[in-house]
Amino acid sequence: MAHKQHTDALAAAMAETARLVEAQLDALLPVPETAEAKLIEAMRYGVLNGGKRLRAFLVMEVASLFAVNKTCAARVAAAVEMLHAYSLVHDDLPAMDDDDLRRGQPSCHKKYDEATAILAGDALQTRAFEVLAEPDTHDDAEARCELVLALAAASGMRGMVGGQMIDMESEGKQLTGAEITRLQALKTGRLIQFAAEAGAILGRASSAQRHFIAAYGRELGGAFQIYDDVLDEIADAATLGKTAGKDLAQGKATMVSILGLERAKAQAELMAEQAAGHLESFGEKADLLKALARFTVSRKS
Amino acid sequence: MAHKQHTDALAAAMAETARLVEAQLDALLPVPETAEAKLIEAMRYGVLNGGKRLRAFLVMEVASLFAVNKTCAARVAAAVEMLHAYSLVHDDLPAMDDDDLRRGQPSCHKKYDEATAILAGDALQTRAFEVLAEPDTHDDAEARCELVLALAAASGMRGMVGGQMIDMESEGKQLTGAEITRLQALKTGRLIQFAAEAGAILGRASSAQRHFIAAYGRELGGAFQIYDDVLDEIADAATLGKTAGKDLAQGKATMVSILGLERAKAQAELMAEQAAGHLESFGEKADLLKALARFTVSRKS
Repeated sequence: MAHKQHTDALAAAMAETARLVEAQLDALLPVPETAEAKLIEAMRYGVLNGGKRLRAFLVMEVASLFAVNKTCAARVAAAVEMLHAYSLVHDDLPAMDDDDLRRGQPSCHKKYDEATAILAGDALQTRAFEVLAEPDTHDDAEARCELVLALAAASGMRGMVGGQMIDMESEGKQLTGAEITRLQALKTGRLIQFAAEAGAILGRASSAQRHFIAAYGRELGGAFQIYDDVLDEIADAATLGKTAGKDLAQGKATMVSILGLERAKAQAELMAEQAAGHLESFGEKADLLKALARFTVSRKS
Repeated sequence: MAHKQHTDALAAAMAETARLVEAQLDALLPVPETAEAKLIEAMRYGVLNGGKRLRAFLVMEVASLFAVNKTCAARVAAAVEMLHAYSLVHDDLPAMDDDDLRRGQPSCHKKYDEATAILAGDALQTRAFEVLAEPDTHDDAEARCELVLALAAASGMRGMVGGQMIDMESEGKQLTGAEITRLQALKTGRLIQFAAEAGAILGRASSAQRHFIAAYGRELGGAFQIYDDVLDEIADAATLGKTAGKDLAQGKATMVSILGLERAKAQAELMAEQAAGHLESFGEKADLLKALARFTVSRKS
């Protein structure tokens, strides 16, 4: 396929995944008629708020390489989105990043209140692990445990939350390139890598296949994060009266502040190419995943 | 054994469990030399803060009925304590109950800061699920998944967090006895019931045995919560210048405000007796668990 065709096919496939995973989220978070309804409404508000559903797409597209049942993959995709949403709801809290808006809408604690947002984030995390462990997700309990362990490793004290802690602690400090790379790998990269690996776990992929998928996810996560820094810089430069990006303004070191804009962009593109390269052995079946790697470093937001 | 002997044996066994589970927590939460060390220190501060370790004791004592390996049981006990600690760390936050003290020490957000306390609570929850899913906890993946599912059900949107939401929403409202019973069953009872059931899951108990253990846990959880309300009233009545309990002062309805002190106390004692009654078929092996039920409704704090 030509590049343009790939881009169109990717956009269509991502839209289809978003539709599927949102239907799954809707089913996994039914609003009860009992007094805790507000909690579940706040959870739904946090997770059913649009977004590209990049992580969900990764789960489902990798799962499709191994002919995984689509409903099973959609459940895991929904769990990753719940985990991601919990981290955003808590990140936006006044004591954390103090963001009033999320994708142009009031953030969860503005729409509801702080206590509700704390509890909604807490319960989204719980529900994510619950969904992974449910028999409907996979008929093999070993695979379900593996999913729980991989998500916990990606999101807990040695993953995303550990990265958030380092991020907070390093405001105003001068980090080295290696320190930024580790911080970003923890904070964002590991959950993206989990999303890719989850598809392979569901598909009971061979260890060689697992190796390639993990490498793809790792490079993709790195490319995604560096390009996020690039976007932060580009977007703000285009905004009248602001010359530095938000992260720079907050005193956060990024790969852009270390490498400069052009070299950071080139680094992200290189990692995206390397990501795609790890999928060679899967042939054409992996074309959309390769297109996703290129999309990651050419997106506008 | 006479009553006094039971009480002494219970105190000794609870102290021994506390020692064991704290050693396990210490091992499960090693402080790294990397930049996220502060996060793990805050997690340790939240969970290694004394306490009666009632939930841990329940796990280990029920597990001992089924001759479960002690290290496996201690891991699950540690996971329950981590889950419980996460809920306390988040409950104490300014946006929630706004408590500066926990067991006479600064609460986690006072010792550290709010952002660290939010993240430490988040990571304690993750670690709890991770420990349950690890192969060292049980050699059967089905049992591990069952533990994850049971903890998620007890602590998530249809359990503890759901109960906290109802509790917040009902401040200043007049709840019925049935509504209070449901609220308390969710908020406190279900995690206590989980602790008892976890021992039976680890022991691959028969469904009849599971039934008795679940019934014991349910009645014990109810007795515990009602007696907490009783203690809240008694303790505050003894405090100079305060005539009503803290919950009453906050406009929260409790079983004491509905039933009055004496009838609430009698209700807790009845439930404790019923809890003990469910263990008849286990004979003398269950003596400490029966003593625990009586202790629950005669403790001073």
